[in-house]
Amino acid sequence: MRWITFLLIVVATAVGVIVLTAPAVGQGGGEAVPIFGIKIPPGYRDWKLVSVAHEEGNLHSFAAILGNDVAIKAYRSGTLPFPDGAIIAALHYGHVPSEENNKVFGRAQSFVPGPPTNFQFMIKDSKKWATTGGWGFAHFDKDGKPGDEALLKTCAPCHAKASRDFVFTQYAP
Amino acid sequence: MRWITFLLIVVATAVGVIVLTAPAVGQGGGEAVPIFGIKIPPGYRDWKLVSVAHEEGNLHSFAAILGNDVAIKAYRSGTLPFPDGAIIAALHYGHVPSEENNKVFGRAQSFVPGPPTNFQFMIKDSKKWATTGGWGFAHFDKDGKPGDEALLKTCAPCHAKASRDFVFTQYAP
Repeated sequence: MRWITFLLIVVATAVGVIVLTAPAVGQGGGEAVPIFGIKIPPGYRDWKLVSVAHEEGNLHSFAAILGNDVAIKAYRSGTLPFPDGAIIAALHYGHVPSEENNKVFGRAQSFVPGPPTNFQFMIKDSKKWATTGGWGFAHFDKDGKPGDEALLKTCAPCHAKASRDFVFTQYAP
Repeated sequence: MRWITFLLIVVATAVGVIVLTAPAVGQGGGEAVPIFGIKIPPGYRDWKLVSVAHEEGNLHSFAAILGNDVAIKAYRSGTLPFPDGAIIAALHYGHVPSEENNKVFGRAQSFVPGPPTNFQFMIKDSKKWATTGGWGFAHFDKDGKPGDEALLKTCAPCHAKASRDFVFTQYAP
């Protein structure tokens, strides 16, 4: 039976390696972004819906914007600025035609999310990130790889132009 | 102090009337749709995200598709057909340009949800709705008013054309 034990150890090790090296997207964790040191928040895909969005131009992107419980409570009660602990997630996908839907509708009118492109997070901590409006920013590509420093530096100056506490997305009822 | 008591009763009654006559959307309940007898499921706005969608043509619509826990579990595990108890919600909004975002981006590229237009639900009960693929269908306008019989009759024949158990929307990771 010794070879079975050995085989079980090999298989268990292989599974462990696969799990440990799997992309961080989904289960959270992984590598932290530069500047803000933020990792993918665990369980973000289970958060409640804030809204949806679509960018044309060079982006052709679809977004689902989700919020943790602190963020959703603030959105629903109209609380501004957002309280510490609020996290807003933007899940980005390609914006692609749905051949199946178009066939049913009899014309090209239906767009659905393509493969994921990136995931972004804003975390409110008014003391820790006082110089960037109280928000920490994070960007990860589809495989959970953090954006670089140059990219992360562009987040706060752009979000500062939003009229509601650095947040562009409004709540969709 | 008697007039204060009277005033409090008047205010409390007024609040009660306002709450009771508020649109059913959001908190669930309200009037049932014809044919399927479905009311707005309570708590649907707290459900997890399935995906997003966008229809052009005459619709110019944005959709957020949410699922109750039974539906989300089936989506994530790839279970088909969907088990009894699964509910899928489609929240529809107008697809409108965001002037604020476009000003920041420096060009017209950003689209966000306009006011809600309607809310639709599919509920799986393979015995109750055996003649319509095991699904019951519901449509409510933005104020929670149910769609009429003619509209409700169009749901199943169209959804029957979807390649995965009457469901068009696929899960966005």
